[in-house]
Amino acid sequence: MTRDVQEIDARVRASFAKQTIMTTIGAEVAAVRPGEVEIVLPFSESLLQQHGFIHGGVVATIADSACGYAALTVMPREAAVLTTEFKLHLLSPARGERFRAVGRVVRGGKKLVVSLGEVFAEQGGSSKQIALMTTTMMVVEGGAGLRD
Amino acid sequence: MTRDVQEIDARVRASFAKQTIMTTIGAEVAAVRPGEVEIVLPFSESLLQQHGFIHGGVVATIADSACGYAALTVMPREAAVLTTEFKLHLLSPARGERFRAVGRVVRGGKKLVVSLGEVFAEQGGSSKQIALMTTTMMVVEGGAGLRD
Amino acid sequence: MTRDVQEIDARVRASFAKQTIMTTIGAEVAAVRPGEVEIVLPFSESLLQQHGFIHGGVVATIADSACGYAALTVMPREAAVLTTEFKLHLLSPARGERFRAVGRVVRGGKKLVVSLGEVFAEQGGSSKQIALMTTTMMVVEGGAGLRD
Amino acid sequence: MTRDVQEIDARVRASFAKQTIMTTIGAEVAAVRPGEVEIVLPFSESLLQQHGFIHGGVVATIADSACGYAALTVMPREAAVLTTEFKLHLLSPARGERFRAVGRVVRGGKKLVVSLGEVFAEQGGSSKQIALMTTTMMVVEGGAGLRD
Repeated sequence: MTRDVQEIDARVRASFAKQTIMTTIGAEVAAVRPGEVEIVLPFSESLLQQHGFIHGGVVATIADSACGYAALTVMPREAAVLTTEFKLHLLSPARGERFRAVGRVVRGGKKLVVSLGEVFAEQGGSSKQIALMTTTMMVVEGGAGLRD
Repeated sequence: MTRDVQEIDARVRASFAKQTIMTTIGAEVAAVRPGEVEIVLPFSESLLQQHGFIHGGVVATIADSACGYAALTVMPREAAVLTTEFKLHLLSPARGERFRAVGRVVRGGKKLVVSLGEVFAEQGGSSKQIALMTTTMMVVEGGAGLRD
Repeated sequence: MTRDVQEIDARVRASFAKQTIMTTIGAEVAAVRPGEVEIVLPFSESLLQQHGFIHGGVVATIADSACGYAALTVMPREAAVLTTEFKLHLLSPARGERFRAVGRVVRGGKKLVVSLGEVFAEQGGSSKQIALMTTTMMVVEGGAGLRD
Repeated sequence: MTRDVQEIDARVRASFAKQTIMTTIGAEVAAVRPGEVEIVLPFSESLLQQHGFIHGGVVATIADSACGYAALTVMPREAAVLTTEFKLHLLSPARGERFRAVGRVVRGGKKLVVSLGEVFAEQGGSSKQIALMTTTMMVVEGGAGLRD
């Protein structure tokens, strides 16, 4: 990794470590690339809806953070990121051994960043897309008192 | 409550009790009315994003379930409900002592139900809307093998 | 009307008059109130999708403008408004003599405004909601060179 | 083209020809492939919002139809398609000589189809993405009396 990529990677992981919800559900950062972040979540009996699938809100949690951190990788060093809205399509029931959310920047602007998130269920050696998200992220300048 | 309302109330609460994610985050059903369901969530240090607010995915979790159970109250007895998509606007940072998600049916159809969700942060005696959700719920007939 | 309300009304109508699409489809401003704008559209054979209903994109056109002008009524005098995203639920087929889009500000911020739009089909003396929209509007400061 | 592809192409174009809004705005079908449809729209002075860009509702109109016809290509012969909801991100102002909406099926189900739409502005030899849409389309069985 070049110095910049290392710095972005460290910044995302340090911020992610402050998201206590991620420890609660058991999610981890799997990859950080400029404009793209991956988060993985192992299946857990404590995260289910009534039919035994992972709850859509949990799928949203990892997809939103993947999209938000993807946005953070393209922002100025002093800016913070806030989700203003997201939409999640649940394409198939969320069952599998592990879930992988991939967030990718579609459009990076000075004030707003649009990201696309895809969530995959992994089982054995196979992977299937189970969700699709689009988000609008707000770039919050340092002066607003928010830090990563 | 009339017999029907009692039956709907019991059905929603029984299904909610199967959503293990609700125990994990500490959410409870606060009210069930025909076409409307309320879920409350006390603030917890284990549900935060990096700035110390409740994570947007957690806000989505209670809003989605409030919308889904609101939909269930208008469905036939033998049908189950599945979220196909939702969109969440985060209007203000999610800080407060307690959060209340109110889901309400906007349009009930035979195949799809559209619900609107509003989430409020409560602090002291005051309440402030912090999120707005719209959802599309699918009516799944009994034959599909899904139960509440 | 007070002077302020008159000024807002004039500002919205002047901007609306520049939207050539509104002349093309036959839409008009029906009401301007602080935080709320109504647009009406008579049925026309030239605006249909393949089943003979008004096309969803036309419904979106009047709902988006109603939401955007509702946002404009709560913005500073020198700011312009740009839609960053909207979501439209088509609740029922768009048939009727006339369609009324009502846009209303849900949350007004310095940088972003969230609005809710409802579209009604009117037939004889009755009115039925056929669509629901939520939008994110960006506040564009005068310096950006955009005018109403 | 194989017979099936020819049949799908003919079916999409016949249905599109019934959408009077497309004649009104000047849009045409540019390509039909299994799971993917392209619609093009030349710039016109009659389709603008107040800043001189193509109105977001017009962008939605071509993106929605591209997504809906993409869905139709994967549906049974006797089924019709209805949009239940769409979300449109406006990534950049819609200015250019011509606009191209590409709709693609992300998930085809028996009852619902999710499509992704991308809209590009073309100017000289270059092309720039200006919008992103996600949609939920309902599969309507022949018995419901709707035809393409």
